[in-house]
Amino acid sequence: MNEIDLIEKIRKLATKGPQIAVGIGDDCAVFRPKPKQDLLFKTDPMIEDIHFTRDLAPEIVGHRALARNLSDLAAMGGDPEFCLVSLALPAHLMNNKLGEKWDEEWIGKFYRGLMALAKKTGTALAGGHLAKADKLFCDVIVCGSVPRGKALLRSGAKPGDALYVSGRLGKSWESRFTPRLELGRSLRGRATSCIDISDGLSLDLFRLCRASKVAAEVDRVPIVRGASLDRALHGGEDYELLFTMPERLQAPKGTTRIGTIVRGKHGAVRFQGEPLEARGHDHFRR
Amino acid sequence: MNEIDLIEKIRKLATKGPQIAVGIGDDCAVFRPKPKQDLLFKTDPMIEDIHFTRDLAPEIVGHRALARNLSDLAAMGGDPEFCLVSLALPAHLMNNKLGEKWDEEWIGKFYRGLMALAKKTGTALAGGHLAKADKLFCDVIVCGSVPRGKALLRSGAKPGDALYVSGRLGKSWESRFTPRLELGRSLRGRATSCIDISDGLSLDLFRLCRASKVAAEVDRVPIVRGASLDRALHGGEDYELLFTMPERLQAPKGTTRIGTIVRGKHGAVRFQGEPLEARGHDHFRR
Repeated sequence: MNEIDLIEKIRKLATKGPQIAVGIGDDCAVFRPKPKQDLLFKTDPMIEDIHFTRDLAPEIVGHRALARNLSDLAAMGGDPEFCLVSLALPAHLMNNKLGEKWDEEWIGKFYRGLMALAKKTGTALAGGHLAKADKLFCDVIVCGSVPRGKALLRSGAKPGDALYVSGRLGKSWESRFTPRLELGRSLRGRATSCIDISDGLSLDLFRLCRASKVAAEVDRVPIVRGASLDRALHGGEDYELLFTMPERLQAPKGTTRIGTIVRGKHGAVRFQGEPLEARGHDHFRR
Repeated sequence: MNEIDLIEKIRKLATKGPQIAVGIGDDCAVFRPKPKQDLLFKTDPMIEDIHFTRDLAPEIVGHRALARNLSDLAAMGGDPEFCLVSLALPAHLMNNKLGEKWDEEWIGKFYRGLMALAKKTGTALAGGHLAKADKLFCDVIVCGSVPRGKALLRSGAKPGDALYVSGRLGKSWESRFTPRLELGRSLRGRATSCIDISDGLSLDLFRLCRASKVAAEVDRVPIVRGASLDRALHGGEDYELLFTMPERLQAPKGTTRIGTIVRGKHGAVRFQGEPLEARGHDHFRR
C-alpha cells in the first residue's frame, strides 16, 4: 500500500467536525472558528524509548498520544475541537525490509486507539503527516476552545486560595487514563489557576506557584492504593488537575483540598511544614 | 541550564502576535481569531537522517522546519499567524554525557534561523515542546488564515484551465528557500486550484489532478540553471507553487504557463505527449 492509498484509508477513519471546512487530503486543514471563541493549542510528542517502549500496544500509543494533549486542554478549561497527527515510523514497523510498504496493521491499531478517545471526547481528526524514522515518533497537536477570555491559566492563584487536586496521585503509567475535560470545563470562571499534573505534583505545583508569584503549603495528598508517598509527590504522568479556588467556593466533586496558597518566595512549596523539592520529571534529568 | 530556565530563554526569543492571548509558558497557547477568518493548519516534521543530516547548520534546520510548513500555507493562499515548535534533541547535542544540560548553543542557533523567517513572514512563536530523543526531531506546526471560504484547494481545477508554476524547478535542497506566501495570497479568488511542489512536479501534479478529478497536459517546464529535466520533473523540495487559473486571466508575475488541464483519467498527466509517471518523492519509496 503506498502513501496516497494509506492516507485515503486514514481519511476514512477520520471524523469530521462541523467546523472542519477542509480535512485530510489538502495542503492544510481548514478550521472555521465560531464567533467569540478563543482557541487553545498544544503539542507534546511521544518518542519510542523516551516515552514508551516498542512492546506497548499500538492502540495504547494512539490513546496516550492524544490523551496527554487533551489533559493540557482540560487544564485550560477547553472543549476539544480537532487534532492533527504526525506519525513517523521506523523500518521495523514496515512490512518488508525495502521499506516499500507501511505496516497497515500497526497504523490501523494506532488510529483505532486514538480515534476511540477522539470520538468519546468530540475531537475531530483534521489532518496529519506520515514519515519514516529510525524510531517511532508521534506528535499529536490538539486544538480546543473556550469562550473568549475564559481560559484557565497557571498564573492567577492568590494568597488565601484553597489548593485542590482531582483523583488520587501516584498512579503513573496507568495504561489508558481519561483526561479531566469535564472537570476543567466546570472550573471556568471559578478556579483562579489550573495546571495538569504531567511531570509530578512537586514540579507542577512549583510551576503554578512560580507563574502566579505565590508560595504554597500542602497538608496532605490523596494517594492511589499501593503507591508510595514519594511517588504521589514526585511521580509523573498522573494527568490529574491541580487548581486553586477562593476558599468560599465549594470544591467540585471528585477533588480533594490538599493545601493553601500563601505569600512567600515565588514557587516555594512546603509539605507538612517541610520544604518540598520540585523533583518531578524534567526532561533534562532523564 | 534546566528545562524551566531554557523555556524562559526561548520565551524571550519569541515574538507575540496581537492575536496570541497566551504564549509560551502555560499548558496551551491561546489564539484569538478575528471575525470571519478561516484558519489553516499544517504539521510536517523534519527528522535527522531522513530529511537532513547532522552536519546541517542549526540555523538552516530552523529555517527549513518553518519554511516547509509556510510553503503549504502559501499553497492555500494563507497569511501566517503563528507556529508551535516541538523539538526533540539527541544526547550528542547536549553538553555532557549525563544529558543533564541542553546544548544552548545548538538550540539558540536553531531558534535564530527559525525566528528570522518567522519575523520576516509575520509568524508569531506561540508555544512548543522540548524533549529528548535518539535523533534530532523537529515538528513545526503553523497556523495561517484566509478570509472565510477563500482557501485555495487542490480540488478546483477545471478542464480548459491553464496550468502554471512559479519560479524554476530542479533546485531541490537549496539551503534556504523563501515560501511563496505573497504569490499564494495574490491567487485568492483567481486560481481554481493550488498545491506546493514539495515532492516533485510529477507527484504533486498527479495529486492536484486526482483531487480535481481531471487530467493534465504539460508542454514545458522552467528549469533552474544546471539542473536536469528529470530533476525538474521528479525532484522534491522545490517549494514552488503549482496552480490553475481560467485561461482568460493574466498570469501572475514570476510564473510560467506549463500546460493545460484536460478531461481524462483522474490524475493522468502527459508531458510533451507522453505519459508522465508520478515518481516524485513518496516516503515509502525512500
